Amino acid sequence: MQDLKEFIRDIPDWPKEGIIFKDITPLLKSRESFARAIDTLAAHFGDENVDLVLGAEARGFIIGGALAYKLGCGFIPARKPGKLPWETTSAEYELEYGTDSLEVHKDSIFPGARVLVVDDVLATGGTASAKAKLVEELGGKVVGIAFLMELTFLAGRDRLAGYDVYSLMSY
Amino acid sequence: MQDLKEFIRDIPDWPKEGIIFKDITPLLKSRESFARAIDTLAAHFGDENVDLVLGAEARGFIIGGALAYKLGCGFIPARKPGKLPWETTSAEYELEYGTDSLEVHKDSIFPGARVLVVDDVLATGGTASAKAKLVEELGGKVVGIAFLMELTFLAGRDRLAGYDVYSLMSY
Repeated sequence: MQDLKEFIRDIPDWPKEGIIFKDITPLLKSRESFARAIDTLAAHFGDENVDLVLGAEARGFIIGGALAYKLGCGFIPARKPGKLPWETTSAEYELEYGTDSLEVHKDSIFPGARVLVVDDVLATGGTASAKAKLVEELGGKVVGIAFLMELTFLAGRDRLAGYDVYSLMSY
Repeated sequence: MQDLKEFIRDIPDWPKEGIIFKDITPLLKSRESFARAIDTLAAHFGDENVDLVLGAEARGFIIGGALAYKLGCGFIPARKPGKLPWETTSAEYELEYGTDSLEVHKDSIFPGARVLVVDDVLATGGTASAKAKLVEELGGKVVGIAFLMELTFLAGRDRLAGYDVYSLMSY
């Protein structure tokens, strides 16, 4: 069976010069690699009695929607400010210059809910940390944080100490 | 079993005054309604030998990711301009004032691919029509267009004549 890394395409100088972007679209479009990625993530967290999967727009919605379906869970969207229609709570995270934030609906996570946070890439860990904070603020328990890939040189894992962090691929 | 419509929340005056927004987040967060929605869509198109599911950001990614997984297909993201990292082709659609467009990677759909287009809401049919055009431009065949819900007073279905259009809920 092909290594999942063979389905990741390097895009030089994107989104800006000097960055090599890891494009996951070849992995998503192959039925074999997409199913294998979701099945492997689900297997790792299968014993955690996950109630809800939380993913952030946009790529986290693709992985998160599939993973929630596979685990027989509900899905909670974390969105950019102003995108969710009902009452929200928000958490900030740092960008290279400045800050941004993510929002979830206040009624999205019931107290005691066992929540799996998911995204495509673990870089600095800033957005994953914000998502975990949102879950905990609403009384949920973060049972794990799942990624398709991890950019180890950015040490995002250190920022997520104390959580069960699992990535399918490391670079 | 509860009607799926019981999981849709009306949000008055959002995103602007006079609009009643249909919020799908309660449907997504319930494991029963989320699984039932995906299973019902998959059952309708289960005999179509679907190769690829195409969904547009952001809510179409949640439904599309889960549906692609369920059908054992690959997933193709259609995105707002400038979001995809490789070579793209784009299709315009009309807004209330002006136009916007969606892009897909040029290598996303192989010639002859049987593609299911999916989104959360069928309103005027403009974005679904743009997605179908992208599929056909790349040599794929649109085997169906699936929605969680359809706003029948906007007559989007007329714009999609000739396609197998299927919605779980109508308003």
